[in-house]
Amino acid sequence: MELHPLIANRRSPRAFDPDAALAPDVLEALFEAARWAASHGNTQPARFVVGLRGDDTFQRVFDVLRPGNQTWAVRASALVLAARATTDDRGPIPNTEFGLGLAVQNLVLQAEHLGLITHQMGGFDHDAAARAFGLPADVVPVVVVAVGVPGDVGLLPPDLQAREHAPRVRKPLSETVFTGAWGNPLLPES
Amino acid sequence: MELHPLIANRRSPRAFDPDAALAPDVLEALFEAARWAASHGNTQPARFVVGLRGDDTFQRVFDVLRPGNQTWAVRASALVLAARATTDDRGPIPNTEFGLGLAVQNLVLQAEHLGLITHQMGGFDHDAAARAFGLPADVVPVVVVAVGVPGDVGLLPPDLQAREHAPRVRKPLSETVFTGAWGNPLLPES
Repeated sequence: MELHPLIANRRSPRAFDPDAALAPDVLEALFEAARWAASHGNTQPARFVVGLRGDDTFQRVFDVLRPGNQTWAVRASALVLAARATTDDRGPIPNTEFGLGLAVQNLVLQAEHLGLITHQMGGFDHDAAARAFGLPADVVPVVVVAVGVPGDVGLLPPDLQAREHAPRVRKPLSETVFTGAWGNPLLPES
Repeated sequence: MELHPLIANRRSPRAFDPDAALAPDVLEALFEAARWAASHGNTQPARFVVGLRGDDTFQRVFDVLRPGNQTWAVRASALVLAARATTDDRGPIPNTEFGLGLAVQNLVLQAEHLGLITHQMGGFDHDAAARAFGLPADVVPVVVVAVGVPGDVGLLPPDLQAREHAPRVRKPLSETVFTGAWGNPLLPES
């Protein structure tokens, strides 16, 4: 049974082309993809603040990243601060972090579809990010997504070069997908 | 700029074929898709308990759904309880609800790729679900995903029939995607 190639081929590279820029119609396609994800009662909690390399927003998102992420994220075409709106005019919204995840995966797969690469980072100063862009009190930053064009692996430090094409590793389904009772695998080992 | 058809065409229908079953290789493809999502430091927090219509697990997931969801979810081929593991042997895992969202969106799009439909539900008794399957204390249920084959809309009550093909509505990107400062749209109105 074929795993969809967008899903099978997606990874989280760090080798971005430092000269590539994203056209407005590309940006629109990425956020349109995010927009059409499902959400709890269609509450649509996903919010994004987008910096394009060379602009002030990019610099401010970059500044709140952990130094280890800055070494390679500097070459991304865009740094996207992804946040969740936790309330609307009906009160608290359930499952906003989950809803943001659904939306970001759409963005990531749309990027793959357009020949782009993405790398999500939880490693940044969340409070500084909220301050930098005047996020409302009910909006919580979750990840920064680096988006760009595949570039020269040689621009990375040696330890990150080795990770760039290393095999991806995941738990077997027998440890995560159950039936009947917790821990009882749905599928035979494969 | 083309929105990927899997992303553009996905919706959350309620008209499932009450006679359709999912073959083991189809189930495997769905959870393989979920498995390859990114997660914080590759912590892989997504966990699933899967009932197939007619089996005891399906009945137990069904029993914890809100009555409004039971009216149509009874005809799904599978009911998938999606949960997040909040700790591992290194301690608390960050962003587990977000990570589960990334994985579930992969599952949902893989289902679309296989001609299946999915409908996610937050409306269920979370505590009863945890008890029903003996979830460990650090595992938190988030949604139930109904998965199945498109069926006859006429099996739905009249109010749900009307919603089945209603236009999908989303906020404009000008209200959710910003640059420079919160509320300042990245993209012109379109």
